[in-house]
Amino acid sequence: MESQPVITLTTDFGTADGFAGALKGVLSRLAPTARLVDITHEIPPYDRTAAIFALRTATPHFAPNTVHLVVIDPGVGSSRRGLIVRAGEFWFVGPDNGILTGVLPQPECYAIRMDRFLSAAPTFHGRDVFAPAAAALARGEPLQEWAERISDPVRYALPLASRIGNLVRGEVVHVDRFGNLISNIPRKAVEEGAQVAVSIDGKPVKFARTFSDVEPGEAVAYWGSAGLLEIAVREGDARARIGGKGLPVEVLRYA
Amino acid sequence: MESQPVITLTTDFGTADGFAGALKGVLSRLAPTARLVDITHEIPPYDRTAAIFALRTATPHFAPNTVHLVVIDPGVGSSRRGLIVRAGEFWFVGPDNGILTGVLPQPECYAIRMDRFLSAAPTFHGRDVFAPAAAALARGEPLQEWAERISDPVRYALPLASRIGNLVRGEVVHVDRFGNLISNIPRKAVEEGAQVAVSIDGKPVKFARTFSDVEPGEAVAYWGSAGLLEIAVREGDARARIGGKGLPVEVLRYA
Amino acid sequence: MESQPVITLTTDFGTADGFAGALKGVLSRLAPTARLVDITHEIPPYDRTAAIFALRTATPHFAPNTVHLVVIDPGVGSSRRGLIVRAGEFWFVGPDNGILTGVLPQPECYAIRMDRFLSAAPTFHGRDVFAPAAAALARGEPLQEWAERISDPVRYALPLASRIGNLVRGEVVHVDRFGNLISNIPRKAVEEGAQVAVSIDGKPVKFARTFSDVEPGEAVAYWGSAGLLEIAVREGDARARIGGKGLPVEVLRYA
Repeated sequence: MESQPVITLTTDFGTADGFAGALKGVLSRLAPTARLVDITHEIPPYDRTAAIFALRTATPHFAPNTVHLVVIDPGVGSSRRGLIVRAGEFWFVGPDNGILTGVLPQPECYAIRMDRFLSAAPTFHGRDVFAPAAAALARGEPLQEWAERISDPVRYALPLASRIGNLVRGEVVHVDRFGNLISNIPRKAVEEGAQVAVSIDGKPVKFARTFSDVEPGEAVAYWGSAGLLEIAVREGDARARIGGKGLPVEVLRYA
Repeated sequence: MESQPVITLTTDFGTADGFAGALKGVLSRLAPTARLVDITHEIPPYDRTAAIFALRTATPHFAPNTVHLVVIDPGVGSSRRGLIVRAGEFWFVGPDNGILTGVLPQPECYAIRMDRFLSAAPTFHGRDVFAPAAAALARGEPLQEWAERISDPVRYALPLASRIGNLVRGEVVHVDRFGNLISNIPRKAVEEGAQVAVSIDGKPVKFARTFSDVEPGEAVAYWGSAGLLEIAVREGDARARIGGKGLPVEVLRYA
Repeated sequence: MESQPVITLTTDFGTADGFAGALKGVLSRLAPTARLVDITHEIPPYDRTAAIFALRTATPHFAPNTVHLVVIDPGVGSSRRGLIVRAGEFWFVGPDNGILTGVLPQPECYAIRMDRFLSAAPTFHGRDVFAPAAAALARGEPLQEWAERISDPVRYALPLASRIGNLVRGEVVHVDRFGNLISNIPRKAVEEGAQVAVSIDGKPVKFARTFSDVEPGEAVAYWGSAGLLEIAVREGDARARIGGKGLPVEVLRYA
């Protein structure tokens, strides 16, 4: 059996109000052969950082030509643009508020011609603009007729780690469901195999390969599955024990 | 590729207990070619008003012949009937407790012959009656053999707005995830283009086209995407600031 | 239209971090014709009992050859094995931590050859091992090449009810979304049709066929849809009124 186009959904809508369901209705009506895959509707309202983390975690694993519909839209109803992003073999669709460029550093961007969606309600562009645009991409329609290339998408910068000699300084930028603290220090900031000492909030924390290298209840720093330094408490909750977003994290290379 | 039947799910089951999963199991076994689309499982337990809002928001956007399975069922195990509703080109299936008639004011209704589902557990009609009925509709089976036309479905009335001269009085009947307050005052209660003054809980609130017409942090009333008057705080939470369900809302037409 | 393989997902990941989305990406890339069905991502972190209940509730209702991917994995990164379980006509895939054997008492078990997944990140076997294994099963690949039969899977015992003469003693082992208390006393522990007296925490509770046999607000014990004795408060919350996990429950047969 031939495979079918895939459209994923990422929103801050929750599901209880039916807004996410409305998106799915539009998609299933306009792209009836597409498979709809929920990534999440539980991004905290308007939280661009959380959206960027979820999308970086999930989207690289999908098949080529997947269309990712992303509606976290604090500026809905304003004149902010709608964006189509082509990156590698993926399509992303959503408001132009820095999330898509936060996921994809060097994207090929197109602005949606909003006047092609004239009946758009001023408060629900997800349903009236972005879902129809995602459906059109899934159907393989050429976007030249309803979007135009742009070079100035909105940029939203996550805090960056900095380096002074052998010391890399970053901070906790995300906390996951398990209370694990995810920093903005990328694995590639430290040479492969280098000996490192890690601290969080000025206190040392053991560095290891993974949590099972420490005892249950012990804190540990490790390179996480997203390629970033994480701090966890084995079978525990590091946020409850240590603290959350914004805590300073340092990695010192000493050998 | 030919399109496939679509069955949506709306429940107050949450997902963690596996009840929603049991419905999906039955559907995927009995209607193996159907696509299953979650609208929500997060309706607050037994909350008919919330269910009606979610269904009104989501279901109009699906393709013709979609089957909507709706299981919010405080009366499960009692002698309340099971209902099939045909409305326009949609099917709805669920208990006869006023939710379906709250979504669809003039429905064509059928009562499910419960004795056709003899092995039904007294506490899980969603799994044992309504999911099999939804699967049968999705397979295109004529319902005459297991349901009969009725004219007296249970009615569940949302509070209605009232009008005295130029004044329309309603109340907040739903609060969405963003803390936006949704009233029961429909757009059509006020002439297109009329000048209006809005108050909530006796205090005036600016009326505008959408939230981005006011400053961040400011309250605003506008016609929402569901066609009802809503009150929001731009990039904020109106429920936290102003209050929730039951607050009186008034619209005065003055020109 | 031919039916398609079905892969279900059960995790404690939530959805907001994108971990569940990453699993779906891998599955949709490696098994592009499979249908993905969420059972739940809301198992409380690391809660094996809750996972067993959700899986027992949902999985028996799926069609033959469904593949159930189950990732609740407190031991990720340790040397715990990965498991394939064949039970009846179903496949289950997940870590070897007692959940799968808790769902399926007499399973046919295979250990995944982890060295076939060499690039596995030490912290995300769900994405790097279990999802690819589930996709391979859905594609119909013979597992002999990447898994081997074992006879010593990890066992995780739920507390068992005990019997002394006419008295069966158990306890509350799960609380569902509605606050219903689910005990470990199976229906088959009491003869069909026997007269019984039920107590919880030493206080008597009325036994009936279902909640609608008592008044709203009244407590009632009944045989639940999972075949276990449950205690509910009709249209209320038994956990709030009576208490939760661990409370003793007794059934006395007196006729």
